[in-house]
Amino acid sequence: MTGHSQTTTKESITEAVLRSFDSCDNERLGHVLRSLVTHLHAFAGGTKLTEEEWLAGIEFLTEVGQMCSPSRQEFILLSDALGFSMLVDAINHRAVDGSTESTVLGPFHVDGSPVRQHGEEIIDTTTGQPLVVYGRVVNTAGEPVPGATLDIWQNAGNMLYAVQDPNQDPNNGRGVFRSDQDGRVWFVTIRPVDYPIPHDGPVGRMLNATGRHPWRPAHIHVIGSAGGHRPVTTHIFDAASPYLDSDAVFGVKPSLVHRFQPHQATEAQTPDGMDGPWFSVDLTIVLEPLPPPRTSQPHQRRQD
Amino acid sequence: MTGHSQTTTKESITEAVLRSFDSCDNERLGHVLRSLVTHLHAFAGGTKLTEEEWLAGIEFLTEVGQMCSPSRQEFILLSDALGFSMLVDAINHRAVDGSTESTVLGPFHVDGSPVRQHGEEIIDTTTGQPLVVYGRVVNTAGEPVPGATLDIWQNAGNMLYAVQDPNQDPNNGRGVFRSDQDGRVWFVTIRPVDYPIPHDGPVGRMLNATGRHPWRPAHIHVIGSAGGHRPVTTHIFDAASPYLDSDAVFGVKPSLVHRFQPHQATEAQTPDGMDGPWFSVDLTIVLEPLPPPRTSQPHQRRQD
Ligand SMILES: [Fe+2]
Ligand SMILES: [Fe+2]
Repeated sequence: MTGHSQTTTKESITEAVLRSFDSCDNERLGHVLRSLVTHLHAFAGGTKLTEEEWLAGIEFLTEVGQMCSPSRQEFILLSDALGFSMLVDAINHRAVDGSTESTVLGPFHVDGSPVRQHGEEIIDTTTGQPLVVYGRVVNTAGEPVPGATLDIWQNAGNMLYAVQDPNQDPNNGRGVFRSDQDGRVWFVTIRPVDYPIPHDGPVGRMLNATGRHPWRPAHIHVIGSAGGHRPVTTHIFDAASPYLDSDAVFGVKPSLVHRFQPHQATEAQTPDGMDGPWFSVDLTIVLEPLPPPRTSQPHQRRQD
Repeated sequence: MTGHSQTTTKESITEAVLRSFDSCDNERLGHVLRSLVTHLHAFAGGTKLTEEEWLAGIEFLTEVGQMCSPSRQEFILLSDALGFSMLVDAINHRAVDGSTESTVLGPFHVDGSPVRQHGEEIIDTTTGQPLVVYGRVVNTAGEPVPGATLDIWQNAGNMLYAVQDPNQDPNNGRGVFRSDQDGRVWFVTIRPVDYPIPHDGPVGRMLNATGRHPWRPAHIHVIGSAGGHRPVTTHIFDAASPYLDSDAVFGVKPSLVHRFQPHQATEAQTPDGMDGPWFSVDLTIVLEPLPPPRTSQPHQRRQD
């Protein structure tokens, strides 16, 4: 335990709090907390935060915490809405050599989606505009990656993911695909639709109070992975969405925006079962090969 | 609604979030949120916050929120333990012309304490070392302030405030006093004792993980107020406490530390009922007079 000495001025309070972490055994924890305190204190000092504003902040954070439940994570939503989640993503996932860029995972991913065959429908296609996704998984050298996994999930025409909607089959709108010898994957779905992030809680009130809308541009979620490659969590955004420039969670990157091509059922390559207009999108997932694992060398005793 | 444009780099994410508040009608709210986002993003960028650390932070804040109840405010405790509460206090209450310095209100204040007579015992004095507080309320010119109010609360010998302890009378350890013509107040109590802030929750875990203790140095809480004067929320700290240099909430200011003087019951000025050693402390509360309220002038039409 270290004494952190008596505090009088604004400056000495911050100094005292920083010193209070001097006995922290966990060097990284001490570093992170010192940085957090420095920035939080600079925020309060710079804005001359009033006591009423401080209390409003306490009440807001309390409400965010109390909104959290097994099916709702309002703090992640807050992090998303302040661009903090995308920033942490950018800090930790720099796309290299043209590998596919990452974006937020979001709250609707469910483990254990059914493994599906190429060409399968992942959703009841009568509830929207049919869409065929022609995917290809390659490495940063442009070589196909066979046996890669694409974990796919998206919302239905009512804006809801199956996990949010007791009226949908739990597997509706989701599936896991394996790439073939050419790195290819294809499946049938519907065009995803724009949807609002949950906005009936304190985060929704913040958006409303600041003149922001809760909408995300229509997208399909993809996690691409393959042995020996860095996995990527990303989206296929629909270039036709009006919300690409104002995604409530700041998840859009230009490289992730795809134009969904319109087709007629009379066209030659129309998949079986399509009897009206349909759309297609080409998706290339570029994975970064990982360096080979270091083999552990038996310890050599130096002979001298 | 303003578009906040597509985001790619760390820098452009922060810019996009700042721009998202461009349509905020409430100018102050927009300013505060822009400052908060700037500092939170600089924190994440500067520490290169990992995704595991981000998730640990989300889980910590969620637990803090879920710990809150009508009788426990873990976010205020967190604010206290990070020195944020004392900083907001320092920003909003600059002591001027020698007026009494302020410190944290703390979570144990209860409105409506009984009005008591001078010399009254505010607590069952058999549970600790008897202490007589000789108080005086003056203004910054040194003139007595008659009719001032001192709202007093403190813990019992078991470290608990009455509001925390169903075994205490709800009015134990608290009372409201009115200053006499000379600005004087006096009452009988016991020496307050050091106590830990509630540390069975996430804030306690943070203190523990960083090698900090949860203790506050012994103190009596005082709110001094009088018509025409700025009220002050403060403490009388016991100079004998070992925790003056490491108050868990950074509340100590040198001017608030008082030496409790030992006495024998045989001394001439011993109050009635003291039959053993007792202590006394002199307390001067200096209040800053407020400027007289501005009288509203009828609007004068300029004649020309
Ligand atoms: Fe989504
Ligand atoms: Fe206290």
